[in-house]
This record gives sequence, structure tokens and C-alpha cells, in this order.
Amino acid sequence: MENLKRLIGPAGPSEMMNVAKTIEEIRRFVRRGRGAGKTIGLVPTMGALHEGHLSLIDAARKACDLAVVSIFVNPTQFGPAEDLSRYPRTPEADLALCRQRGVDAVFMPSVEEIYPRTDMAEAGQSLTEVSVSKLSQTLCGRSRPGHFTGVCTVVAKLFNIVQPDKAFFGAKDFQQAAIIRRLTADLDFPVEIVLCPTVREGDGLAMSSRNAHLAPSQRKGAPALYGALRLAERMIRESRPPAEAVISAMRQYLATHAPEGIVDYIQIVDPDSLADVATTISRVLVALAVKLGSTRLIDNMAVDARPSKA
Amino acid sequence: MENLKRLIGPAGPSEMMNVAKTIEEIRRFVRRGRGAGKTIGLVPTMGALHEGHLSLIDAARKACDLAVVSIFVNPTQFGPAEDLSRYPRTPEADLALCRQRGVDAVFMPSVEEIYPRTDMAEAGQSLTEVSVSKLSQTLCGRSRPGHFTGVCTVVAKLFNIVQPDKAFFGAKDFQQAAIIRRLTADLDFPVEIVLCPTVREGDGLAMSSRNAHLAPSQRKGAPALYGALRLAERMIRESRPPAEAVISAMRQYLATHAPEGIVDYIQIVDPDSLADVATTISRVLVALAVKLGSTRLIDNMAVDARPSKA
Repeated sequence: MENLKRLIGPAGPSEMMNVAKTIEEIRRFVRRGRGAGKTIGLVPTMGALHEGHLSLIDAARKACDLAVVSIFVNPTQFGPAEDLSRYPRTPEADLALCRQRGVDAVFMPSVEEIYPRTDMAEAGQSLTEVSVSKLSQTLCGRSRPGHFTGVCTVVAKLFNIVQPDKAFFGAKDFQQAAIIRRLTADLDFPVEIVLCPTVREGDGLAMSSRNAHLAPSQRKGAPALYGALRLAERMIRESRPPAEAVISAMRQYLATHAPEGIVDYIQIVDPDSLADVATTISRVLVALAVKLGSTRLIDNMAVDARPSKA
Repeated sequence: MENLKRLIGPAGPSEMMNVAKTIEEIRRFVRRGRGAGKTIGLVPTMGALHEGHLSLIDAARKACDLAVVSIFVNPTQFGPAEDLSRYPRTPEADLALCRQRGVDAVFMPSVEEIYPRTDMAEAGQSLTEVSVSKLSQTLCGRSRPGHFTGVCTVVAKLFNIVQPDKAFFGAKDFQQAAIIRRLTADLDFPVEIVLCPTVREGDGLAMSSRNAHLAPSQRKGAPALYGALRLAERMIRESRPPAEAVISAMRQYLATHAPEGIVDYIQIVDPDSLADVATTISRVLVALAVKLGSTRLIDNMAVDARPSKA
């Protein structure tokens, strides 16, 4: 009983945070919480926590009785030429932040715990894959083939391991959130997907674990992604021009303000289907990816040019 | 309270069987059962119930407090040239059998309930797909591309909708069971997969809803599938010959005893990996598919030639 209280004790900054390394441990935590009638909020992360993640944690604590954070750098969502090995890993700082922010349990498994080696699969692999067609074939999916299948598969696993009532994702990864929302509906996961606003640095740069990789000159150019989005927002609000005109202006803006940057994509899409739009007369999502050196940054903004109903 | 008792009342032949047409209805039934501390057994079927299904139902009733049967002819597991439209449908007889056999709830959704039309997907489709590589590329997967992706996707949905403790599958569909076992492990579904023995007619023909399609002359040849498996079993037990020799003998047996039959495949595989084996010195699975007219029948047998430890 005392042990139970320790585990699911009152939410709030405390030293009672449970750190689970295995599936069995986190399931035990969740089972006890659920047995006590508590709701569970899950914040799936790859660690290297920043203010963006912390805002998701705050939302989970507010909406649910127990906040669970998963920290797992998922190998299957990185391509062979991508930055898996140099992805920032700061486990001690992450745990301290979670504790400080009143997280109830952290699930921090090894790669082998999530992808156990079988006679058919190597560690870090899964024979079973979950994929969402159409939504995965545009934007980041074009330059990161297989990325969203890796994301979907690990999210399906985390949903089955933690069985949360709600799961919290950041709007910075808008396409990821759209795909996970579709996956959740299509596979009937009994989980509510909550999208939280992008958190930005003072100069507008969207918070990202990958920002840590930026050299000083790259860091100076990085806020140009947000600048280009603000430019797009102004253009659309003022005159609803064709998407192509907005994209050209953004491209030019980036050439001026982040000359080191190499544009991966700039797209204006329907926020639900993620299909490219030709005009900007309805609600649209403006999204872009830019490489600064070997660091690829993404950002996006939803813009609605339609007259407000207020 | 009276209503609750009606819904989750004592298991046993009764008229208290719950028939749920919607996801919300079956979830309500399961939630109440679980709230009362009951365990849930799921028997996923495509209807046209026969003794094979009834043995799964008996196993579910024995192992779990509440037995739920799903009846859904899943369009996504049929290829464009396959028998979706003529697949036997006998809903009234199915419900009577379930009632008689003491089933607690039947989930009998429409195609639109399982695959709701969205702006991106037609009815009968899902943008999200679950697939198991390797295990799906042999045996039936060769002549039925996409079949097991359809099976995996609908099973993942049913697991999320019913959230059973155990799910029951027949050994006649051995490959399907192996794939679902892999899917369940890989995606961490908290469900135990139970495999039940194939149920046969007096002459050895494996029970199948598709047997109803056999013309009299085809029905006469159909037990040759089991005859060929028995021949293989004898050969392996006696002399452990190379797999190729067993397969040749089976082919010849079928040519004699089911001259109308067209062999789709005869394979001898490892029961776990489903990879072809060259020798029969260890535990193997002998499996075959034969077309009789437009009806495709499958059967299999696990044979262990190793000296028993008894």
C-alpha cells in the first residue's frame, strides 16, 4: 500500500517519479494507476528535452491524472544516411527536467527492450510495420523515405505498452501529428491525440533538439525559417495570392536571410489531407524544411485567410 | 444494474447474448465486463460458422469469463480477382449458433463501421496498414498478394476495439496464426494468441466456410488434401526423406485422388520462420493449397520426426 502510494502518489514536483526501463515495469505502473481510477497522459519523446517538450508535459499533467513521458531514440525512423548516431542524448538532464516538472513516470527503454532480437529480426528492427499511405508521401516523407513508417510503428508500440487515454504531440512536427491522428482513427486505438502549439526561441526559431547542432553562423540564419513563415502569413492575409507566388517570395527571403541554407521543400498544403493547394483562399498549412550544414530544420504555420466569424 | 446483469450475466446457453453492430456498443459491453473484473476472449471470424469456429468459441469460453465473437467479412483481405462477393454469408444461422454455444457478445459491424469513408479513403479501405514482412511472403502470401496486410490491419483494429485478454485462431490457417502471433509480439499488443487444432469432417476434410462452394465431384476429391498430408506424415516418420521427395509423393497422390485439383503450392517449412526446409529431420510444417474449380482449399500438418522424449 505504501509502495502503491509512492508510485502513483500525488502529482506535483516531487522525488516520487518512477523510472521504468522495461515494458513490464511501465505496465505495472500504469496498471496500478488505472486500478486507482486515474487517467493516463503520454508524452512520447526522443529525449534531449527542451521547452517544447515541457509544454507537452504541462498539457498532459493538466489534462490527465498521471503524466508518463517516454524517452526513446527510435532507430527505425532514421534513414541510413541520417543522424541517428549523433542525435543528442542527455538522459540525466532529461530525468531532472521531468522530475522538476512533476512527471509521474518516465519510460526509458533500451533499443533491445523495444526491438528484441528474434530469429527473424535484428535488434533495432521489427518484422511488423505500421504505415499510413498518402499522408506519408509528401513534405518530409519525400526526403525521408521510411521515416514515418518507423514513427508509426513505434507509436503503435508505445500506445499498446502504455495504453494512455491521451497522447500529446507538438505542432512543429505537424505532418507527424496528422499521420498519428490518422493511424489512431484507422486502427481504432482508444487514445485521444492532443496537438500542442510550437514553442519558439525569442527570435522565432522553433525549439528542436537538433538546434544544439547548429554552428554559430548557422544559428544566426535559423530564425529565417520562421521569418519566411511570417512573410507567407502576411501575404496570404493581405491578398490571398496563388501558392506559387508565396513560395517564391519565401524562397527569396531565405536566400537573403539564411544564405547558407539549402531548401529541402517549401509547400503550401491542405492541413488535413496534406495535399498541395494552388490557391490560399481557404485554411492552409505553410511548411518548410531547410538544411543548415548537416542539420535539417523544419517549421510550419497554419494560416486562415478567410474572414473571421467574430 | 438489471441492465448490467443482462449484458454480462452468467455465461452459458441463454438468450442474453449481446449483439453489437457498432464499435461504441461492443466497447460499452467490454467496458462493463471489465469493470466487473471479467476477462475477455475474442474469436475473430468472417461468419458462415462451422464446427471449427465452434471449437474456438468453446476454447474462449473455457479460458475467459466472457466470450466475444466478431463476424465481419473483411474486404481488405480479398484480392480483386478473389471471392469476396460470393463468400458465404449466413448471419441468422451464425447468431443462432453463437447463442446456442453460450457466446456472451457478437460484434457484427457493417463495412462502413469498420472502414468509414473519409476525405482520403473510400469505404472498405484504410489509409493505415499493418504488415508483417518475411512471414507474409511465402505459402498463401505468394498467390494472395496483400491478403495478410488486410488480415493484420483488421486484426489490429479488432484488438483495439475489443481489447481482449486472449484471442483464438484455428490451426487450419497456420500462416495467419504465425503472422498474428508475430504482429502481436512486435506491436506489444497485450493479448495472448491461442492456437486451436483444425477440426475435420469424418473423411478428413478440414472444416472451412468455403467447403460450401464445392460441387459434388469436387467434394469427393477434397479429402485428398488431408490424405496427402497423412502420406507426408508417414514418410517423414518412417525415413525422414528430403523435403523434395515428400512433396513429389504428395503431388502424385493428389493427381490420383483429386484429378480435378490444381495445386497452388505444396511446401515443407519451419513452423516458426515459415522458411522452406530441405530436410525433414526436425519439426516441420507440411502445408498445401489446391484449387478445386474456383474454390481454393488449404490445409497443413505439423510433423515431428525427432524421437519423442516420452
